[in-house]
Amino acid sequence: MIIYASGVKLFYRKGVSRLIVNFLKHELPPFYSTHPWKVTEEKFSLEHNLLSETIFSLSNGYIGIRGSFEEGLFYYPGRSIRGTYINGFYESVPIPHAERGYGYAMNTQTMLNVTDSGIIELFIEGERFTLDSGTIIYFKRVLNMKEGCLNREIIWRSPAGREVMIKIKRLASFMHRHLIAYYYRVQPLNFSGEITICSSGDGGVDNHTHEEYDPRYSASLGDLRMRVRGIEVKERGAVITQYTVRSKLEMVCAVENCINGGKILAAETKRPNDKKATTTFRLKVYQGEDVILEKYTAYYTSRDYPAEKLPGLAWEMVTNAREMGMDDLSAGQEKCCRRYWENLGLKIEGDPVVEQGLRFNLFHLLQASGSRGQTGIGAKGLTSEGYDGHYFWDMEIYMLPFFSAVNPGQARSLLKYRYSILDYARKRARELSHERGALYPWRTIAGEEGSSYFPASTAQYHINAAIAYAIFKYIDITGDYSLMLEFGAEILFETARLWEDLGTYVSRKNNQFGYNEVTGPDEYSALVNNNCYTNLMAQWHLRYAAETALLLKKKHPEDYRRLAEKIGLSEGEIKLWQQAAEAMLIPYDEAMLIHPQDEGFLDKQVWDFASTPAEKYPLLLHYHPLVIYRFQVCKQPDVILAHLLLGDRFSIEQKRRDYNYYEPITTHDSSLSPSIFSIVASEVGYVEDAYGYFHISARLDLDNLMKGTHNGVHMANMAGSWLCLVSGFAGMRISNGRPCFHPYLPEKLSGYSFRIQSGNSLLQISVNIEGVTYELVKGESISFAHCGNKIILSKGEKVTRGLREDLQDS
Amino acid sequence: MIIYASGVKLFYRKGVSRLIVNFLKHELPPFYSTHPWKVTEEKFSLEHNLLSETIFSLSNGYIGIRGSFEEGLFYYPGRSIRGTYINGFYESVPIPHAERGYGYAMNTQTMLNVTDSGIIELFIEGERFTLDSGTIIYFKRVLNMKEGCLNREIIWRSPAGREVMIKIKRLASFMHRHLIAYYYRVQPLNFSGEITICSSGDGGVDNHTHEEYDPRYSASLGDLRMRVRGIEVKERGAVITQYTVRSKLEMVCAVENCINGGKILAAETKRPNDKKATTTFRLKVYQGEDVILEKYTAYYTSRDYPAEKLPGLAWEMVTNAREMGMDDLSAGQEKCCRRYWENLGLKIEGDPVVEQGLRFNLFHLLQASGSRGQTGIGAKGLTSEGYDGHYFWDMEIYMLPFFSAVNPGQARSLLKYRYSILDYARKRARELSHERGALYPWRTIAGEEGSSYFPASTAQYHINAAIAYAIFKYIDITGDYSLMLEFGAEILFETARLWEDLGTYVSRKNNQFGYNEVTGPDEYSALVNNNCYTNLMAQWHLRYAAETALLLKKKHPEDYRRLAEKIGLSEGEIKLWQQAAEAMLIPYDEAMLIHPQDEGFLDKQVWDFASTPAEKYPLLLHYHPLVIYRFQVCKQPDVILAHLLLGDRFSIEQKRRDYNYYEPITTHDSSLSPSIFSIVASEVGYVEDAYGYFHISARLDLDNLMKGTHNGVHMANMAGSWLCLVSGFAGMRISNGRPCFHPYLPEKLSGYSFRIQSGNSLLQISVNIEGVTYELVKGESISFAHCGNKIILSKGEKVTRGLREDLQDS
Repeated sequence: MIIYASGVKLFYRKGVSRLIVNFLKHELPPFYSTHPWKVTEEKFSLEHNLLSETIFSLSNGYIGIRGSFEEGLFYYPGRSIRGTYINGFYESVPIPHAERGYGYAMNTQTMLNVTDSGIIELFIEGERFTLDSGTIIYFKRVLNMKEGCLNREIIWRSPAGREVMIKIKRLASFMHRHLIAYYYRVQPLNFSGEITICSSGDGGVDNHTHEEYDPRYSASLGDLRMRVRGIEVKERGAVITQYTVRSKLEMVCAVENCINGGKILAAETKRPNDKKATTTFRLKVYQGEDVILEKYTAYYTSRDYPAEKLPGLAWEMVTNAREMGMDDLSAGQEKCCRRYWENLGLKIEGDPVVEQGLRFNLFHLLQASGSRGQTGIGAKGLTSEGYDGHYFWDMEIYMLPFFSAVNPGQARSLLKYRYSILDYARKRARELSHERGALYPWRTIAGEEGSSYFPASTAQYHINAAIAYAIFKYIDITGDYSLMLEFGAEILFETARLWEDLGTYVSRKNNQFGYNEVTGPDEYSALVNNNCYTNLMAQWHLRYAAETALLLKKKHPEDYRRLAEKIGLSEGEIKLWQQAAEAMLIPYDEAMLIHPQDEGFLDKQVWDFASTPAEKYPLLLHYHPLVIYRFQVCKQPDVILAHLLLGDRFSIEQKRRDYNYYEPITTHDSSLSPSIFSIVASEVGYVEDAYGYFHISARLDLDNLMKGTHNGVHMANMAGSWLCLVSGFAGMRISNGRPCFHPYLPEKLSGYSFRIQSGNSLLQISVNIEGVTYELVKGESISFAHCGNKIILSKGEKVTRGLREDLQDS
Repeated sequence: MIIYASGVKLFYRKGVSRLIVNFLKHELPPFYSTHPWKVTEEKFSLEHNLLSETIFSLSNGYIGIRGSFEEGLFYYPGRSIRGTYINGFYESVPIPHAERGYGYAMNTQTMLNVTDSGIIELFIEGERFTLDSGTIIYFKRVLNMKEGCLNREIIWRSPAGREVMIKIKRLASFMHRHLIAYYYRVQPLNFSGEITICSSGDGGVDNHTHEEYDPRYSASLGDLRMRVRGIEVKERGAVITQYTVRSKLEMVCAVENCINGGKILAAETKRPNDKKATTTFRLKVYQGEDVILEKYTAYYTSRDYPAEKLPGLAWEMVTNAREMGMDDLSAGQEKCCRRYWENLGLKIEGDPVVEQGLRFNLFHLLQASGSRGQTGIGAKGLTSEGYDGHYFWDMEIYMLPFFSAVNPGQARSLLKYRYSILDYARKRARELSHERGALYPWRTIAGEEGSSYFPASTAQYHINAAIAYAIFKYIDITGDYSLMLEFGAEILFETARLWEDLGTYVSRKNNQFGYNEVTGPDEYSALVNNNCYTNLMAQWHLRYAAETALLLKKKHPEDYRRLAEKIGLSEGEIKLWQQAAEAMLIPYDEAMLIHPQDEGFLDKQVWDFASTPAEKYPLLLHYHPLVIYRFQVCKQPDVILAHLLLGDRFSIEQKRRDYNYYEPITTHDSSLSPSIFSIVASEVGYVEDAYGYFHISARLDLDNLMKGTHNGVHMANMAGSWLCLVSGFAGMRISNGRPCFHPYLPEKLSGYSFRIQSGNSLLQISVNIEGVTYELVKGESISFAHCGNKIILSKGEKVTRGLREDLQDS
């Protein structure tokens, strides 16, 4: 069977029926034009505007703005979600439980939509510029991924016939995390006359409520919308202070405007209401001559600085930015991007559509990476309020492997963030009646569990293992054991304790150790016994914790003693971890020779896919959980994910059998699904599946394949798409600190290359039809493996080898 | 081990540890004094007032009022919940789901607290009478179960030294379901002078919110509190009209006052605000002479009559009542009670405490029985807003057996009610993706599912079987097959269809038929596979439906054809029912020779009871569901209940083994628990358990053993306590329409007797140390069995036999 995505034919093996059903629906051809470094909207589309606002979001990991137009919200009701978000800045919102149970999460933290400082309104001889009036003669919106900025060019004829060229550029500064800058250039094309530019900051914002019926969205804030404490009016700008009601946080937004060109007839800043400040320039303009507004806005919050310092800091930032000017800021921005892309060394030859998609994903990962140990990366980054801006387990399982391999500092900060909320995880474990250990929240911002439906959240204990696994992977590729000593071991031991306390030895099953009433990654089953993924990861986690404890004791006795004392860890307890790990029950079906997803899974009926029409996907929006839970149907990989994470434990034949079983019953209703299937398909040699899923993963947001990108990008999948290339096609695994490759070239491609950092070395891997070339780009020397053979490269050296040959025709 | 309840020593076999832990806490001696026909509060207690308001609640199945004082709410903040409830009269309240899922119940129906017409305030020379001022010289509050009324007598000395005797009587009329009547008599004891009586009806009511942390309580109504449409002031009364916001219902309360004695100085009716009407009598009174206020209030709603007729009907009712007068009404009330008690023929000799408790329970069952096919009986009757006034499955499993045996008309009406909401059940089945059949709501008033937490509600599919089972039991004892023809078969078939559609043949288990992701009666496990009770009941249900279909087809072909056509029932479908029933998987553990509660149950660890302190019960208020679900611990009988309902299927030895296993791991955190354990203990010969649990069941509300009676009585347990006697001690079962007895005399008792109706016959069963005497009190003849031997009695005949002898010392 054949499907089309982005107008390109995709080939699939027969089994991929679910995905076909789902993805056949999306529109062809792609909405944004293809280019290696740009995402371009060639034509204004109100219909696609919500999607474009996400696609053209800018952020720097600290602050994010959606790609909404400067003209303001008013003219596009229902077609625009204006959003300005600060990572980790939240309101604490009570969770309305109709029936409350003991230990339920009582509050959720909601990332706030803060002061909208992106408003620039233009009046031409009294006629307001909007895209739904007059005539659009020319329109182009470009996300420039090399320069790190968003550009828009319009030639517009007003209803009265006046023509203007407008060029707008904006950036969320990578060098100055608090800063957003706008460059707004107007040129009268066929007239001279008067124009007015009104530049505002508006604190009269709320989070967007989602009346649509979709449990994945953010909720209304109602009485808890952010309040404006006050506005200080400056000559050509303002400082707006907001505060939150329950979380008791403060935020300041400073706005400064500079005008150049034309003749200023009047300029003043006023407050049209008590939440908004507007600087108005009345100008005499001349045909063919530019008027340029530079606008600088800065955000500071009391999560980083004392509240009383915020106005000063913010104002200082915007006045400094004005000094630097847009040219300098742009140059700095481009430099940051250049460094990033150089470091990634990404190239894909033969499939420009996929290359663009992957690069777009990597650009959003750059935009999301701003952790300094106090924040994580939300499921949607800073591109929307979806999932309330919460951090989930996918940060560790999907994003951390990427950052560990290309930006270890960012990976370390994300793990440091987890350490910063360890006390909350301890508290949560107590609420769940565990006398020892820590249970990380399924979704959170500042550490408190924010999930309301525990069967698909708190029951997903596997988040503990995800964090432990990310620590392991980070150390394995970076060699930075200081993280373990500094805080990693404490996380590792506290989370391991929970596994020991949670499980039970089952006398009726040869005293094997197992877990009842847990939920694995696949949320189309819940509260099951001995979820295969959970048991495998718990076993790995307990072993790793025990090994680490013994190693620390031997090699870092003082660190160990201090930590053991702090958390009351005894040797007896470490033995318990080992015993539990040894006794772990791993469900396996001897007749079918596959791993059941959980103990009862294979007793259920297989979902009737044949009778499920395309419009009934995703299933969670069309079937009650009781219906879904009753069948063999997976939202996303579960056993298959374990095969990737703990690959050494399973033979290729085993992985292939499990893949053959689970792939046809997986709906991929989660964006976490395609990339994992692609990687494992590569490993087991199903090259058509591997490429098909990779294509989907690479284009998932750009082509809006999940139909939900208007509500934010899918960060985990973005990292996953890179893993499809690196861990999938190039077969990279890390084994005892050494990268190992097992590369092949997908039929569709003529070549690809990428770089990874291992320790202090930067290794470039380039694959084409001839073979693979490894080159040490940075560092003194590197040791790695190619198809099982060890290679050592010295500085500047490179070596070429043949590709793997064990691929299966599927 | 020995425990005390009601100041009486109870003996238990060793296993009953949970119950001991729970019930050791309650206060001794009993708060209300013991009397065969009365419940008396000898001393005013503000501390116990919330409890007493429940205990002294009056109702007639249609309307209910809590036992709050006429003096009004104001003086007892937090110590009084004034409530007036109309069965089936509700507001539709949106359920706030923090994370909504497809098919979740979106609204719940909340029984409304309506106009408070029980307010009578008394001023003695300007001094307001309240029980927390002045001096209480004498106080007695008596629920008279023979007369069906509540009496209060007070001698009170005002702060200024004036003494009055006040005697108050109230009743909720059994003869006139819309009517409540008050008789309020005042006698000055040591003065002549002026008194003022203010009698009000107040529509300014709301439901009571429960800030306490307990998921079992009712929720706040907020903006949805009932509104007052208008008040029509009459000379000495008023007509108050209220309406609901979302459910669009209307209610009218009429109030009429008559004064006798003293000299009226002034009398007028006014509206102190726009929600309240007050009739004020200013009177000259004389030492030793009575002044009597008779007050009649009537409630009518648009659920029964067109809205425009309500004011006329209500006013007519109160004026008619005034004509009849309190004496006539009281006589009629007593007559109703006499008939009820005669019909029950209940006597217990040797344990007056238990006799009082049981009679109190039976009185509340009388008070709850007012169904005319449009309403059921709520979990708390009409004694509180607890559980939102919802009807649950326990109506069928606990209450219906009682009503079927003593008041078949009421039983029939309750089943008729279920038929009236069959269309909602069909709709609900569709929401759950069942193309055929009906799924009854777990909790409802008017038919819509009102549960918010589906794992312990919608997943309890066994409610379908409960309703089918009640139909079966009703017909079995009454012989009234017309119910089956009229509507029973339609319910039976539609609910059976769901079992067929819900289940699945498991190829890995010899193609046995089973149910995944269901919850049994025991809510300390949820979403399990093959819950033993569910599978047993489904099997029974499918068989009964198939047998009934075949029987109807043969004996009532025309009825059958009509029905089969209406619901599209084919013979093929009936075969599917039979096949599924035959193939039903019934979990059984061959090693332990017991029935596991579900497939995974025995793999779980047994709850650590030894480390669970008494104050941690009920567990649901102290442990997260994920903790409780993970262990072997039962809130209430599950397998054991199946042993009672489907007793023929299991040997005594099997029942005893299962009892021995489950009894020690059951916490009885549900009031549905003790009675079932008592009955099954009787059957298997554990006489001390049987009596202990019976005592608890009989006294559960009077002694506030669950600590929650302030929030309403436990209706199901009340019926259960009668079953302890009848099905437990006397061992009554119905087999093919014939009652069978297997009686014994508990050691604590010197005798007991009761009556049951079977067909047109009324049979009295009297047990004492000598044996059992059966007497046909009414009817031509009756056939029944005693210890397996058939006996036929003719009119007026009686026969005496020996008691069963197979009791075990426990």
